[in-house]
Amino acid sequence: MSETGFNIVVGQSGGPTTVINSSLYGVVKEAQKTPEIKKIYGMINGIQGFVEDRLMDIEEELGDEIELLKNTPAAYLGSCRYKLPENLEDEIYDVIFNKFKKYDIKCFIYIGGNDSMDTVSKLSKYAEGINSDVKIIGVPKTIDNDLVLTDHSPGFGSAAKYVATTVRDIVMDANVYDTHSVTIVELMGRHAGWITAASVLARKYEGDNPVLIYLPEVAFDENTFIENVKKQLDKVSNVIVCVSEGIKDKDGRFICEYSGDAGTDTFGHKMLTGCGKYLENVVKDKLSVKCRSVELNVNQRCKAVLASKTDVDEAIMAGAYGVKAFMNGETGKMIAFVRNESEGYRITCETVDCSLVCNQEKVVPREWISDDGTDILEGFIKYAKPLIQGESRPEMKDGLPVYCYRK
Amino acid sequence: MSETGFNIVVGQSGGPTTVINSSLYGVVKEAQKTPEIKKIYGMINGIQGFVEDRLMDIEEELGDEIELLKNTPAAYLGSCRYKLPENLEDEIYDVIFNKFKKYDIKCFIYIGGNDSMDTVSKLSKYAEGINSDVKIIGVPKTIDNDLVLTDHSPGFGSAAKYVATTVRDIVMDANVYDTHSVTIVELMGRHAGWITAASVLARKYEGDNPVLIYLPEVAFDENTFIENVKKQLDKVSNVIVCVSEGIKDKDGRFICEYSGDAGTDTFGHKMLTGCGKYLENVVKDKLSVKCRSVELNVNQRCKAVLASKTDVDEAIMAGAYGVKAFMNGETGKMIAFVRNESEGYRITCETVDCSLVCNQEKVVPREWISDDGTDILEGFIKYAKPLIQGESRPEMKDGLPVYCYRK
Repeated sequence: MSETGFNIVVGQSGGPTTVINSSLYGVVKEAQKTPEIKKIYGMINGIQGFVEDRLMDIEEELGDEIELLKNTPAAYLGSCRYKLPENLEDEIYDVIFNKFKKYDIKCFIYIGGNDSMDTVSKLSKYAEGINSDVKIIGVPKTIDNDLVLTDHSPGFGSAAKYVATTVRDIVMDANVYDTHSVTIVELMGRHAGWITAASVLARKYEGDNPVLIYLPEVAFDENTFIENVKKQLDKVSNVIVCVSEGIKDKDGRFICEYSGDAGTDTFGHKMLTGCGKYLENVVKDKLSVKCRSVELNVNQRCKAVLASKTDVDEAIMAGAYGVKAFMNGETGKMIAFVRNESEGYRITCETVDCSLVCNQEKVVPREWISDDGTDILEGFIKYAKPLIQGESRPEMKDGLPVYCYRK
Repeated sequence: MSETGFNIVVGQSGGPTTVINSSLYGVVKEAQKTPEIKKIYGMINGIQGFVEDRLMDIEEELGDEIELLKNTPAAYLGSCRYKLPENLEDEIYDVIFNKFKKYDIKCFIYIGGNDSMDTVSKLSKYAEGINSDVKIIGVPKTIDNDLVLTDHSPGFGSAAKYVATTVRDIVMDANVYDTHSVTIVELMGRHAGWITAASVLARKYEGDNPVLIYLPEVAFDENTFIENVKKQLDKVSNVIVCVSEGIKDKDGRFICEYSGDAGTDTFGHKMLTGCGKYLENVVKDKLSVKCRSVELNVNQRCKAVLASKTDVDEAIMAGAYGVKAFMNGETGKMIAFVRNESEGYRITCETVDCSLVCNQEKVVPREWISDDGTDILEGFIKYAKPLIQGESRPEMKDGLPVYCYRK
């Protein structure tokens, strides 16, 4: 610890994932190795808490518990959904940069998704405008895997592993009766079907369930869907269908909206519920077959016991690389993954311009989806399989996982 | 293998659990050690498949894969929901006992819940009536833990561990934002609240979530519920409420019925859906607070990666004891667990009369629930904690669990 050094601050933002704390762990560990860095501040509830002076000295607060961070789901520091104004002359920017000064902070690392990269981009532009030497770095996290300019995002691998395992479990459960049944599994993904596509990994053999997989990338037609379910019922007793929460018809209308209302969150995203439930009723009505729907819900982003070791390791690496990028003088950048397949699967980090990342959305390539839009092809399987490899499980005590949390 | 011996048949019935295959494993392993037993037949889809001659030679079919059974969820042999007629003069009984003769079967072991014990009871009575020497033995399984005359039932411990872990995960997830929110977790349990009560084990410290737990054992009042949620919102930012699917009002009407229709299954049980979703809407409407509901659904009975080792071991023991009971000449009996706490937690097996078990339902004792019906007390925690201890996880390959299934 140097007397002449400076401090950094790290925050978490947006929806939690299984490994967003692994990235925090990576930031802390790398910062501890960097002699110039004195204190590692943590923003409580992201940039929103920071402007209210809610921050902590992470090392002081965590002590020996820091190792637990690696396998603790959700966001240890707390999160927020706070969008900075487009107008860089808004007083909030001045407030934030005064706080950086107040706490002698030279680097702000924001672990988050699309909207957080928007924050990184705006703050780095503002810094440039006022000639501030504070660097702003983004570390990606999203279960949705929709960030562009990176091979994939930390958080997706564990979500994919959870989905593949759970769909495999549900298939086992559904197969106990020999009477016909349909199970509709609704998975997360508003506009990008990455998580739902991962359900294809659940198959134990060719022709195994899930036999139908629907992503938002292809327009959904209710009548064709019913025809497809009917066809599959001739082949397998118990049909498992996986659908993204965000499937839409050819006019862009969400299927979940067929059944009810939908509100919007503070970012203007539509709040979706229940296309699975809706389709369950359609199947019952049109095919008179036993049908149930299962919504995996928040478990997709917080099931630490099913975290992918690859994902945890990469999340740590991305966090650590964030500190390195700052020390190299970079700013306004997001850490990105580059895949090298010459000798098996290997990931290295690079930095990409945050302004090119935010407000973009990477969807599943059309060529990885079958022509009729009901199946996921080999290209995706080859892409996703390495991401779910290995186990990185929380310590268990008294039969339950031990996590690290703010007291 | 003795030339002069006989065969046995084992079946699985009712809803699957995480450890019903562990009991099957126990039956097979014990039968293999019993020289008088030649073949171990497995009924495919329970007694219903058996009358259609759908059975398998388990050892032949499984080969080396038998070890995988221990950690395979759902029912390897397939299940059924088939209720034998009350009238023992119905021809079906004759059909079944002719099949026993045809396959040289001297013992039928049925792994199942309440309704399966009804089958065991009826078949043993019929055997007595016709002076048959075929013995009928029941091995308990139910995630619901509602079987009487046994300390607990195989299947409950793993369901409880899954629920406690998952509620802990959901609490972590809910706590990332500092704005007020309510999360309603709907758990399985039509009439008995055992599974929902297990959510109390999720608490990491006193006062931690879930702060409200509602079981079917206590009449549910919507207005009082809203008052309670309101009070809790003053204490914790994010309120997690756990409710049994089967909560009912003082007149015995299911809360889920408030919002819609309910069908009945072949045993005359009401098919329930959605009290969590219903209460979500009530909370939003009356308290104008962010609220979501999460239904853990079938995951409660098939998440092998969160199986309790205690549960798996006991399920194996119960299966093995079934074979021993038969060899001791018993019939019409269910294997039951007796708890011995003189030197820590220890379970031994005994047999109880199936006719005293079937069509009974063990509910959570009133003294284990707080007076106001919103919390679970120490008595339950002391009872349930030993049941979730230890990990018994499936082998993982390519990042996913390896299971044993009928080809």
